[in-house]
Amino acid sequence: MTAKKLGRQTAALAYPPSFAGHANVVGKKEGQGPLAASFDFIGNDDTFGEATWEKSEQAMQKQALALALDKAGQPASSLDWLFAGDLLNQCISSSFAARGQDAPYFGLYGACSTMGEGLALAAMLLDGGFGAWAGVVASSHFCSAERQYRNPLEYGAQRAPTTQWTATAAGAAILAREGPGPYLTHVTAGKIVDRGITDTNNMGAAMAPAAYETLKAHFQDTGRAPEDYDLIVTGDLGRLGSELLEELFRRDGVELAPRHTDCGLLLYDIEAQDTHCGGSGCGCCAAVLTGYLLNGMRAGTWNNILFCPTGALHSPTTAFQKESIPGICHAVTISNTR
Amino acid sequence: MTAKKLGRQTAALAYPPSFAGHANVVGKKEGQGPLAASFDFIGNDDTFGEATWEKSEQAMQKQALALALDKAGQPASSLDWLFAGDLLNQCISSSFAARGQDAPYFGLYGACSTMGEGLALAAMLLDGGFGAWAGVVASSHFCSAERQYRNPLEYGAQRAPTTQWTATAAGAAILAREGPGPYLTHVTAGKIVDRGITDTNNMGAAMAPAAYETLKAHFQDTGRAPEDYDLIVTGDLGRLGSELLEELFRRDGVELAPRHTDCGLLLYDIEAQDTHCGGSGCGCCAAVLTGYLLNGMRAGTWNNILFCPTGALHSPTTAFQKESIPGICHAVTISNTR
Repeated sequence: MTAKKLGRQTAALAYPPSFAGHANVVGKKEGQGPLAASFDFIGNDDTFGEATWEKSEQAMQKQALALALDKAGQPASSLDWLFAGDLLNQCISSSFAARGQDAPYFGLYGACSTMGEGLALAAMLLDGGFGAWAGVVASSHFCSAERQYRNPLEYGAQRAPTTQWTATAAGAAILAREGPGPYLTHVTAGKIVDRGITDTNNMGAAMAPAAYETLKAHFQDTGRAPEDYDLIVTGDLGRLGSELLEELFRRDGVELAPRHTDCGLLLYDIEAQDTHCGGSGCGCCAAVLTGYLLNGMRAGTWNNILFCPTGALHSPTTAFQKESIPGICHAVTISNTR
Repeated sequence: MTAKKLGRQTAALAYPPSFAGHANVVGKKEGQGPLAASFDFIGNDDTFGEATWEKSEQAMQKQALALALDKAGQPASSLDWLFAGDLLNQCISSSFAARGQDAPYFGLYGACSTMGEGLALAAMLLDGGFGAWAGVVASSHFCSAERQYRNPLEYGAQRAPTTQWTATAAGAAILAREGPGPYLTHVTAGKIVDRGITDTNNMGAAMAPAAYETLKAHFQDTGRAPEDYDLIVTGDLGRLGSELLEELFRRDGVELAPRHTDCGLLLYDIEAQDTHCGGSGCGCCAAVLTGYLLNGMRAGTWNNILFCPTGALHSPTTAFQKESIPGICHAVTISNTR
């Protein structure tokens, strides 16, 4: 163990980087939800001017990064590192979106935990003395995800009550070594957790144990308790997964519910917008963080949050082979003070 | 720019980590090639005891990591971070192989550049003061890759002369903050480079420009020349891509050929083993590094090498949509002296 490593999974940054800019781009349905005011760009037909859904997702990711860079007052050429990821096979939304960017690029696959994974790595590199600027971007698109993971939309397949709705959304954040905050102060990287869930229509159940393990490790490694945070935001456990997470902590005598929420619950009015268990997809928590959450921190609504994206690391192939679903959760502490 | 960042793309490690252990697992064909003596385990039927090719690949990755940890004399529970990646949709070989590992996990997608990407990030985290041990593992399997990217093997499709052969191989390396070397001293992270190549049967041509750009950046950022290295090893440009890379440098008046080789050329006897342009796949350069190259450094055959894995970041979907192929190359310097 070294000075900046607390316990098994947590890094405490010596000189926490600052969020210098953050922005998001979402689809029509997301723009009709409760967080509409926090989005930088709302598409009106989800194509974003492109001929295929995959190219639409690339366009969203590009635009989100451009907007975030603009808010940070930096060109892409000042990025020391760009981290990006998405849900599509071979992460094509990310690598194709990054073609035009003049930045050293690291592609990630963390499913819906990608924004957490990227922020964790970007923050540690900057804190380690490697450069001054890093970008993190993640995206998902309902239409590209449905046809890849489930059925082409044209089939009109019915959705199970436990499903979540893959968000059409991209979010980007620019971290800087210097700046007025909010700051990324701690990273708790997740281990893979698999409790044997095989129902691909119930990702919340597959990911809740991973969120539980990472949060437990975070509290243990840092000596903190849920009460030390104004908000603990998982993403995207949805309704069922959130209940499971709170129940897992309740068994330990810890009450998470009063300060816990989930990006999948925040993004939509889940009843009125018929999203069953809520939102999901790499873009869901990326868009909620880069709008609602970071804007709220800048406004002083919260001063200290724990942002905990969760991912389900399966594929249609593993489901056909009757494998269970491995989950992961990466948590980062974001604070208005260094 | 900060102290440890040289130029635009290169990081010079202040306290270079040491390769504490490295190991590989390969298939039957690879075990019949010229590097046979450098492999830790050669499977005799490529199933590795599993019922599907995807599970075979997971088994290889698990075993390579276990062997590397064993050589480092460490349990998985001492890993501060584990980086892993592969070619399969949703990187299932990696996340499923990591289920049993008690280590914070970062999933990567860099196609055949993955070993370079993982080593780059792992080295920077250790150098940044974040922990003492990190693992990096990458894999590919001919049979899982063929059916995902091209055709099921049962079709017996013919292969174009420019194709490469996806290696059935996994390689793992354990980096440690302290140790007798070899050391990872520099990282040059690649940008995405796309010169408009659309032929998915000619990956060498798609990746050569990326290798050229990263090597050029490395020489520029560090002030070094090809002559400063005993060996410059790309992976996996294959025969055609290697010729293109050398030609690109020749135009600049730089002769790379005398000290350049490529993991795709080293892995097979490309004529006798009928692999057309040579090997490819995340496992190819991972297995060549963790056997032939690092063993050769320990034996003093080479004291200073530049290891430059290259990746083609396309997917079958982008090919169907007539997109060109983005390439990337991450280079790391490995030296017997700190």
